[in-house]
Amino acid sequence: MRSFELEYSGTKLYFGLNVVKNLSKHLNGIERVTVVTGKHSARVSGALKDVEEVLEDLDVEYKVFDKVKPNPTVDIANELSEFVWRESSECLIAIGGGSVIDTAKFSSCIALSGGDARDYLRGKSVKRLLPLIVVNLTHGTGSEIDRFAVLTDGREKIGVSIRYPDVSFDDPKYTLSLPRDQSIYTTIDAFFHAYEAVTAKTTNPFVETLSFECARLIGENLKDENLKGKFNLLYASMIAGISLDISPAHIVHAIEHALSGINPKLAHGCGLALIGARSIYWIHKNSENSSKILSFLTGRKVKSAEDAERSFTEFLDSIGFEGSLEDYIGRDDFRDVEGIVFGTLSYLLRRVKFEFKREMLYDILERSL
Amino acid sequence: MRSFELEYSGTKLYFGLNVVKNLSKHLNGIERVTVVTGKHSARVSGALKDVEEVLEDLDVEYKVFDKVKPNPTVDIANELSEFVWRESSECLIAIGGGSVIDTAKFSSCIALSGGDARDYLRGKSVKRLLPLIVVNLTHGTGSEIDRFAVLTDGREKIGVSIRYPDVSFDDPKYTLSLPRDQSIYTTIDAFFHAYEAVTAKTTNPFVETLSFECARLIGENLKDENLKGKFNLLYASMIAGISLDISPAHIVHAIEHALSGINPKLAHGCGLALIGARSIYWIHKNSENSSKILSFLTGRKVKSAEDAERSFTEFLDSIGFEGSLEDYIGRDDFRDVEGIVFGTLSYLLRRVKFEFKREMLYDILERSL
Repeated sequence: MRSFELEYSGTKLYFGLNVVKNLSKHLNGIERVTVVTGKHSARVSGALKDVEEVLEDLDVEYKVFDKVKPNPTVDIANELSEFVWRESSECLIAIGGGSVIDTAKFSSCIALSGGDARDYLRGKSVKRLLPLIVVNLTHGTGSEIDRFAVLTDGREKIGVSIRYPDVSFDDPKYTLSLPRDQSIYTTIDAFFHAYEAVTAKTTNPFVETLSFECARLIGENLKDENLKGKFNLLYASMIAGISLDISPAHIVHAIEHALSGINPKLAHGCGLALIGARSIYWIHKNSENSSKILSFLTGRKVKSAEDAERSFTEFLDSIGFEGSLEDYIGRDDFRDVEGIVFGTLSYLLRRVKFEFKREMLYDILERSL
Repeated sequence: MRSFELEYSGTKLYFGLNVVKNLSKHLNGIERVTVVTGKHSARVSGALKDVEEVLEDLDVEYKVFDKVKPNPTVDIANELSEFVWRESSECLIAIGGGSVIDTAKFSSCIALSGGDARDYLRGKSVKRLLPLIVVNLTHGTGSEIDRFAVLTDGREKIGVSIRYPDVSFDDPKYTLSLPRDQSIYTTIDAFFHAYEAVTAKTTNPFVETLSFECARLIGENLKDENLKGKFNLLYASMIAGISLDISPAHIVHAIEHALSGINPKLAHGCGLALIGARSIYWIHKNSENSSKILSFLTGRKVKSAEDAERSFTEFLDSIGFEGSLEDYIGRDDFRDVEGIVFGTLSYLLRRVKFEFKREMLYDILERSL
C-alpha cells in the first residue's frame, strides 16, 4: 500500500496512509481557514482531528462549519458562502464525501465572486475563487479530483463543471469507519462513473484504461472491508473520478439525480444501484464497452443486454446490496422524474450515441420498483 | 481512434489524428518562434508542414533549426540556446522524437536562464524558461509528457529532471513514416519506461495501471504497422511517459545510457533491446511486478527469472528484432561502462530495492554480446 502523489489538471493529489501530514505544505501565508464538514464522518473517521492538529501546529485560526447534509441544497451552499465571507477565510478545507466537497466547491467560488448558488447552477461564470483543500472520506465521489459539483434546488438536483480542488488527500484509513451500506453505495457511485464514462460518446483510450481498472478493483475488493481492500476501493474511485472528469456521466446519473432530488432520503449511490441493472440493459445495446467493463467487474464474459442486466444484479446480490426503489419513489412520481430527466437534465442524455427515449425511462423505473 | 485531451502535471496534451490544428490556440501574442527538428523525420512525417501552415496562417515569424541528431550533445543544446536567444524567439516548437524534444527542453531554459548545458546536466537550477510546444514523432520517448531530458557530454550521457512541455501533440499518423527498425527501437524504449517504473522502489498503483496497459498494448500492436496499431503504440508510449515521470527508470536505462554515450551510433531503444533480456533476469529476482508486466507483454505466464529472460528474448524474436551488442561495444569498453554506471549514473541504481552489483553488470554485458 504505497503512498503517491499525482498532479492531474488543477489538482495536486496525495494518496495513501497518513498523507494529511502534507497539508502543512499548502498553508503558507494562510491565517484563517473555514473547515467544512458534515455532522459525523469527519469526526468519526479521525480526519477532522488530524486536520486540526496541523492547523494548530501552524497557528492557523479556523472555524468549523459542520452543517452539510447528504444531497446538499443551494441554501446550505449560500449559508456556507456567507459564513466564509464574514469570517474572511482565506481557504476552505472540505472534509467529507461528495456532499461536503461539492458544497465547498460552490462556496469557495461564491465567497469571492458573490451571488447565489442558484445562479451558478444555471450557468453564471466564476470570476474568482478561494483556495480549496479536500480531505475525501468516501470511495465513491471522485469529486476530490474532478471539476464537478452537484446541488439540489427544490426538487431539482443539478451538476455543473465548477472547479478543481487545489489540493486533495485520499487516505483509506478514513473510509474504515463508513457503515457497510454507505461503503456499498459509494462504491456503486464510483462504478457508474467508470461505466458511464466508457459508454459515453466522449470515451477514449485513457478513460478506458482507468475505468476498466476501476471496475476490476471494485469486483475484487468490495467484499473485503480491511485496510488493503479500502486502499484499492479508494484508488478505484479516484481513477474513476479522472475518467468522469474527461468523459462525464449520462443516463444513470441523470435518472438518479431526478430520484434523489425528489426524495433526498435516497442516497445517491443507493439510487444508482436500484436503477442500475435496467439502465445497463438499455445502454448495453448501444455500447461495445459495456460488456468489457462488466466483464472486468464480474470476472465473467457478458454477452447480451439481458446478460448484462443479470450480471449487475448478481453482483449487487454478491455484495449484499438490499433495497427497492419503491421504498423511496412511487409510480405517482414517475411524471416528475420524466419532467426533470427530459427537462433540466436533458443535456446529459445527449452524451450517448443513441436516442434515449421516454419509454426507456419508464421501463427502467417500472422494473426497478 | 478517438482524439482526446489530457492535462497532466505541467503539460496540456492533445492526442489523436490531426490534433496539431489546435496549435493555433496556444500562440496568442507570440510573434517569433524557433522550430527545432532533426534532418529528416519532421519533413518526411508531414509534421513540419502542418506546423508551418498554422504559423503562416497566424503570421508568426519562425526559423527552423534542423541540426539535432540522435544522442544529442551539450554542444548542440548550447548552439540551439544561442540561436533562440539571438533570434529573440518567444517560444520553441520541437518536432521530433526524444532527441529533438530533450534538446529543446534544455534550450528553452538556457535561452532565458543563461549558461552552459553542462551546468544544467550537473544540477544548476532553472530560473526562467520559454514556452515549449512539442510535436512528438515517435512512440517511445515519453518526453512529450514527462519532465526529463537527456544529453551527452563527451562519453557521458546524463538525464535530468528539467521541465514539462507546456503543450504536446501526439498524432499517430506522423509515426507511420518511421522505418521498421526505429519503430521497434522506440517501442522497446516505451516498454522499458513501463518495466522500470513498476520495478522501481517508487512504483504505485497508478504507475502499475498505466504500465501494465502499456505492456499489453505493445504486445498486441507491435506486429501491425497500420494506423490503428500506431495509435495504440503511441498511446502506450504516452502512458508509459506518465509512469516514468512518477517512477523513474533505473538499471536498464543506466546501462544503456553508458553504452550509447560511449558509442553514439547505438540507438537508445536498440541498446535497451540488446541488454534488456539479461537485465530483466536480475531485476526479476527482486520484483513481484516483473512477472506481471511480462505477462501483459507476452500474453503468457512468466515464472522464474530464467523464464522472464527467455520471454523477453522470444518477444524480440517475434517482432523481428535483430542486432548484437558486439556491433557497437567490445569487451575493451566494459571498464568504461562500469565507471559510468557506478559513477555519474550510480544514483539511478538506488531506485531499486536490491543492491545492483558490479558482477551483475558484467554478467549483463557479457551475455548480451
